[in-house]
Amino acid sequence: MSGDASLWWEDGALLLLDQTVLPHETRIRRCASWEDVVDAIRTLQVRGAPAIGLAAAYGLVLAARQHGGEGQAGQRGGVRAAAAALRAARPTAVNLAWAVDRALEVVDAAPVCGDLSARLRAAADAMARVDAEGNRRIGRHGAALLPRGARVLTYCNTGTLATGGYGTAFGVLRCAHEGGLGIHVFACETRPLLQGARLTAWELMRCGIPCTLITDNAAGAVMQAGEVDAVVVGADRIAANGDVANKIGTYTLAVLAGAHDVPFYVAAPTSTVDLSTPDGRAIPIEARAPEEVTVLCGVRIAPAGVAVRNPAFDVTPSRLVTAIITEAGVVQPPYASGLRRAVEVDATAVGGGA
Amino acid sequence: MSGDASLWWEDGALLLLDQTVLPHETRIRRCASWEDVVDAIRTLQVRGAPAIGLAAAYGLVLAARQHGGEGQAGQRGGVRAAAAALRAARPTAVNLAWAVDRALEVVDAAPVCGDLSARLRAAADAMARVDAEGNRRIGRHGAALLPRGARVLTYCNTGTLATGGYGTAFGVLRCAHEGGLGIHVFACETRPLLQGARLTAWELMRCGIPCTLITDNAAGAVMQAGEVDAVVVGADRIAANGDVANKIGTYTLAVLAGAHDVPFYVAAPTSTVDLSTPDGRAIPIEARAPEEVTVLCGVRIAPAGVAVRNPAFDVTPSRLVTAIITEAGVVQPPYASGLRRAVEVDATAVGGGA
Repeated sequence: MSGDASLWWEDGALLLLDQTVLPHETRIRRCASWEDVVDAIRTLQVRGAPAIGLAAAYGLVLAARQHGGEGQAGQRGGVRAAAAALRAARPTAVNLAWAVDRALEVVDAAPVCGDLSARLRAAADAMARVDAEGNRRIGRHGAALLPRGARVLTYCNTGTLATGGYGTAFGVLRCAHEGGLGIHVFACETRPLLQGARLTAWELMRCGIPCTLITDNAAGAVMQAGEVDAVVVGADRIAANGDVANKIGTYTLAVLAGAHDVPFYVAAPTSTVDLSTPDGRAIPIEARAPEEVTVLCGVRIAPAGVAVRNPAFDVTPSRLVTAIITEAGVVQPPYASGLRRAVEVDATAVGGGA
Repeated sequence: MSGDASLWWEDGALLLLDQTVLPHETRIRRCASWEDVVDAIRTLQVRGAPAIGLAAAYGLVLAARQHGGEGQAGQRGGVRAAAAALRAARPTAVNLAWAVDRALEVVDAAPVCGDLSARLRAAADAMARVDAEGNRRIGRHGAALLPRGARVLTYCNTGTLATGGYGTAFGVLRCAHEGGLGIHVFACETRPLLQGARLTAWELMRCGIPCTLITDNAAGAVMQAGEVDAVVVGADRIAANGDVANKIGTYTLAVLAGAHDVPFYVAAPTSTVDLSTPDGRAIPIEARAPEEVTVLCGVRIAPAGVAVRNPAFDVTPSRLVTAIITEAGVVQPPYASGLRRAVEVDATAVGGGA
């Protein structure tokens, strides 16, 4: 990583750590066009709701540069076309649409003769900075919820790789660890793409946070043994009523947490809250290729021709969520009013800081 | 498979389909000594509670042959030593100890000057036949519990590969399919060793049973969508009170089934019921090597040195089990009396048939 970021601007291109080959290989993907960014998002070279939002924001900088010689109208048209494609690259994480919308506001507000790419670049940089700062606040708010010596189960990857830096759910773990709480983390491997085994275990070890890797299906047994004090996960979209879309398997963890009286926390920036989505039923769930399940490390693990259901996400109903940890504070049920307030508070803060 | 069996006696050796390489490769492991059988059990070349019991029974035939030239006392001593090693090859599935104990009864009952290996061979053959016949009864009893068009979720592998033939939970699916119920099966892949993806999906497709493969962590979402009418799993040991040890992840499925009002059935022969184990807390749970989780298809998928918890099994408390399907009938709660009756009924039946 470049400092504490998994994507950064350098020499007129967006550079990002290719997350499909980590931790075994450190390969940097150079995106020199917005089309490259769409490809990197679709192929999960960059993943994690906040991170793909930031990648899209930088993708629009590239679009503005690609269409720089086409006059104001041509450039704006090119940026808008790129915005539509970037927004459609993945359907579930709302941060993607959020970041594109913020960038388009910059386009709308720009003077007719201004330098659009520089403005978009400044906006993308600001989003990255605000996301990283927000993560640290999420970390502090969340760590305050954990008891000393907490054994925390987490899922998928929500660390520096998935965000502008520091992490969301991972930021909570990191802040608790840095604050000397003496936590221990159970990282679920997160099938099919093993973001937990590959990325979260790696980030935990880099941070010196004591951890144990388990298969996803062992989470129940570990909770049954009384070894989990809290579950902390991220989110790809939070509906207005507090329903949470996140990596497939999150719902199962929430049911297990409820059955064992273990608090189930969701940590996410307010850019993940989508007040225009009334509840979980309205969240589009991305179906991904069967080969993610049937082929592992290039080796086929299931019979040829087998039918596969491979949803990338599931929806956890708000009744199973103990609290939602945002940079604007911890939102408790009922979520409708609390989430609305958090989004408003944050909009003010971002507006003031930008 | 040789006919409908995954292990068979041929030319003085136990032959078995190597389940670690199926379905991509059909490789037959030839066990010419009881030590070979211990190795095949430990390395999971043969797996599934009833199947490893049968393998152990044939292992004792090999032991009797290996010690054939050592006189009666030497042969019996050799068989007993092999019995202890076979019994200890894996700790959780009680069928292993059950089969070894049945074989030792044959040794005890044998005349001083008889041919021990022939008697042990006859006993092993009888156990295999009785197991396969029992599976068909399990299938009929279980299929009667399923509604027409049932969508059934199953776990790990409980088919011909795991048994003397036909299968336990798999036998229920097979019987329902053969009876024209029009079922659809969701097969969970079953991490870490993917018995569901590799073996169950393959057996389902061979039998022409419509099926969909899912990652273990997608089971919750599929149940949440109302697409599962029943869960049917096997067992490695059933305690006297009805607590069930089975492949890690079974407990999570039971919690999910309970949360969605989906019946949760356990299908197993009475040889899996251990009346001497009072409840699930007394069942030893095998911890297996971290590499099962961190290495896939020979490729490392987690950072070097990461701590791993890899229990092979978990325990589902009897309160989450809707019914236990045995060859002696369907046992409903309260399980203590019902399981005792089923074991007694079955002992009579086996005694009469043997």
